[in-house]
Amino acid sequence: MNRRMIFYMVGNIVRLEAVLLMLPLFISLGYQEMNCVNAFSAAIITATILGFGLSIFFKPRSKVIYAREGFIIVTLAWVFLSFVGALPFVISKEVPNFFDALFETVSGFTTTGASILSDVEGMSKSLLFWRSFTHWIGGMGVLVLIMAILPTDTGRAIHILRAEMAGPVVGKLVPKIRETAKILYFIYLILTVVETCFLFFGGMSLFDSTVHALGTAGTGGFGIKADSIASYSPYLQWVITIFMLIFGVNFNLFYLLLLRKIRPVATNRELWVYLAIVIISGGIITASIYPLYQNVSDSVRHSFFQVASIVSTTGFSSADFDLWPDLARNTIFILMFFGGCAGSTAGGLKISRLMILVKSVQKDIRHLLHPRSVANVKLEGKPLDNNILHGVTTYFSLYILLIGVTFLLLSFEPRYNFEANITASISCCNNVGPGLGLVGPMAGYAGYSNFSKVVLTIAMLFGRLEIYPVLLTAYPKTWAKK
Amino acid sequence: MNRRMIFYMVGNIVRLEAVLLMLPLFISLGYQEMNCVNAFSAAIITATILGFGLSIFFKPRSKVIYAREGFIIVTLAWVFLSFVGALPFVISKEVPNFFDALFETVSGFTTTGASILSDVEGMSKSLLFWRSFTHWIGGMGVLVLIMAILPTDTGRAIHILRAEMAGPVVGKLVPKIRETAKILYFIYLILTVVETCFLFFGGMSLFDSTVHALGTAGTGGFGIKADSIASYSPYLQWVITIFMLIFGVNFNLFYLLLLRKIRPVATNRELWVYLAIVIISGGIITASIYPLYQNVSDSVRHSFFQVASIVSTTGFSSADFDLWPDLARNTIFILMFFGGCAGSTAGGLKISRLMILVKSVQKDIRHLLHPRSVANVKLEGKPLDNNILHGVTTYFSLYILLIGVTFLLLSFEPRYNFEANITASISCCNNVGPGLGLVGPMAGYAGYSNFSKVVLTIAMLFGRLEIYPVLLTAYPKTWAKK
Repeated sequence: MNRRMIFYMVGNIVRLEAVLLMLPLFISLGYQEMNCVNAFSAAIITATILGFGLSIFFKPRSKVIYAREGFIIVTLAWVFLSFVGALPFVISKEVPNFFDALFETVSGFTTTGASILSDVEGMSKSLLFWRSFTHWIGGMGVLVLIMAILPTDTGRAIHILRAEMAGPVVGKLVPKIRETAKILYFIYLILTVVETCFLFFGGMSLFDSTVHALGTAGTGGFGIKADSIASYSPYLQWVITIFMLIFGVNFNLFYLLLLRKIRPVATNRELWVYLAIVIISGGIITASIYPLYQNVSDSVRHSFFQVASIVSTTGFSSADFDLWPDLARNTIFILMFFGGCAGSTAGGLKISRLMILVKSVQKDIRHLLHPRSVANVKLEGKPLDNNILHGVTTYFSLYILLIGVTFLLLSFEPRYNFEANITASISCCNNVGPGLGLVGPMAGYAGYSNFSKVVLTIAMLFGRLEIYPVLLTAYPKTWAKK
Repeated sequence: MNRRMIFYMVGNIVRLEAVLLMLPLFISLGYQEMNCVNAFSAAIITATILGFGLSIFFKPRSKVIYAREGFIIVTLAWVFLSFVGALPFVISKEVPNFFDALFETVSGFTTTGASILSDVEGMSKSLLFWRSFTHWIGGMGVLVLIMAILPTDTGRAIHILRAEMAGPVVGKLVPKIRETAKILYFIYLILTVVETCFLFFGGMSLFDSTVHALGTAGTGGFGIKADSIASYSPYLQWVITIFMLIFGVNFNLFYLLLLRKIRPVATNRELWVYLAIVIISGGIITASIYPLYQNVSDSVRHSFFQVASIVSTTGFSSADFDLWPDLARNTIFILMFFGGCAGSTAGGLKISRLMILVKSVQKDIRHLLHPRSVANVKLEGKPLDNNILHGVTTYFSLYILLIGVTFLLLSFEPRYNFEANITASISCCNNVGPGLGLVGPMAGYAGYSNFSKVVLTIAMLFGRLEIYPVLLTAYPKTWAKK
């Protein structure tokens, strides 16, 4: 157990956050939001002192780490990031309650997009920017970012990559991890810029375009209007729909496209299943809401916007789907579990995990029918290791357990009811954002008690890091010397 | 594929049902309920003709069957049983809608206890008896019963036993299946009689005692009062509490007790986990409802009654837990998933499956911490085969999928809301009975549309037979010649 290395890495991350906080600082200077200038400055100073303090005090003797250090580094880095990231909200006095600020920041970094703000349009622009920027930072992963920009002097950095990136199997695009991280961030940046342009040239202001592009890219979903995306034009809603879907796709596929390898992209099973889910559920919802809108183009647009938003776990909304008929509403509820493709910025279970679960069931059925047959399960044409198969079904149990525990802990909540609490638990564990009823897309999490907010904050962290890293960090044996 | 043997066995089961229907017929004669005398007679004649017809027409050439025939026999037997069992309700005109009658009968056989009756106290006694008797028949399994009373001339009857009995691992108590089935039914009968005596000597009428004992033994939960068990004395409520818990215990343990083998019973892990769950959740609920009752003995009694009822998936209620505080209500909601011990008459996931799920997670955590270690998972001191481990985690995925599909199909329901639909799905899939809100313990399923009733009826069958038999019967490849 290389404890020094853990805190050294956490120190590095906090120092990186100090740099990242410069961006909203400049914006607060530009808009002359003085309370925010002070708040961001104070946060930057805190992050710098804390970051250097940790890195110097815990200067490691060896840089070799193993899987367990990887898990702890990622979890602690996210916790430190969130505490420091919450400071500007508190110091600016725009979110005076610290639990609220922490909830909002974790919701940002984990790309959930659940908000405790009751008057989002009254917030300073620089804070709104920081909120959406946390989506962007958390979407691809802050440790992936640090690997892309700093020399990877840590031995076996793959352990960190694995712990932070989502999905059942995490591989490298190219042999070197640093190159992989660079490629991922390059694609991520380009796509974000492209979306900003599409929005800007569609009539959105530069600030709005940037903020929404950051929120889409990270599949976060913090809006800057009280009605999320509902008041923007149909063109802008379609642009966001398409980009939400794009950011739910495995980034490896974009890399293959850059290399002009069309065939492996066109034959990627996860991509097709993902699109099939979008089209089928979009069709069902369109049929269900048509009587409400009496208009094909509105029904199709709102239906696919919401489907793209939920399946990619972004959480923007173009309409209040909480008011929709049960069939549409329940389809959205079921979609909350799915999530995007592995290797994307989306949360949720991930399509490839769902595929492996289905294949696992098929395998067991085959075994029941032909007890002596030995059947291999394949994913994307390659045979799946039994360990991965078993890992996915076990992960699923743990995931349902996480939702159950979160829900049970919300029992002390005085203001929200069964429907709100269960959908809030599911939505936060999957990093979606909105739920149904009292936590529906046009409502929010502001009314939750501080205790419930802490519960949901932790649930979001568990969800984003896919349970194991957080669980292991809280497990004393992980910290054992040997 | 021995198709003749399948229908031959189904014919036998239907003939057995004709015999079992004699009992409510005698009761209807005793109480001079003429509409019921006619109804039961008509049902008996139908069952006899249908049963003999099937058995003669499909006289098998070979009696050898394999796993797949076992699954189909069990599923079809349950479907035929339910259709014939619904006849008395319809013919007597006391439940005129056939979908209602089928729902009620399947709810009976699957020991769910969900009811569509809006005026249970106005029903004929013989029909109330038949309703509770279906719990008793379905609890231990009708194919187990036929094996106990008829010579097991079928080759490999274990396939049938496995398909009908619940739990991750089904074994034989003694080498011969027929003896195993006899022992199980002997214990079942004795315990039912003992409970009847306890209730009778506590002041309940003989009819009420018998009906409630049948409902407890099968862990079914059909009540014969509008307020279930609430109007009976505390003594009677405690008797039912204890027997609900007893029938949630693995029957193998009672057999061991008969053989005076105390040690393996006292060290049975599943039993201890089961009791721990009961005590912990009972304690939480007592604390939660104490402010409501202002009285320790009432709080403890109602708390443990409901916990015993839900964890054993019986579904009786001594109080309207839907009105309880969130903590109590949500604890009950979570308990709906658990179920009793494997090898009991209880439904739900089963405690041993939960234990295997937890062990599976622990194994994966150990593997993450020590990637090169090879750890074996043990249950009840014996190493668990990887196939069983994987089978349980896969079953869990399928089980959650079943709940999800059931819930989605309830979207067409005009009268019930999200809370009712989701708890109805969970309650029916786990064969519990009551849900929350509009399907709470003092409400019922009467208002559901015919379509929703069919959905829930099928869900109860899936739940009772633990998914695979029904799924495989609906899967064309199972029926393939080779």
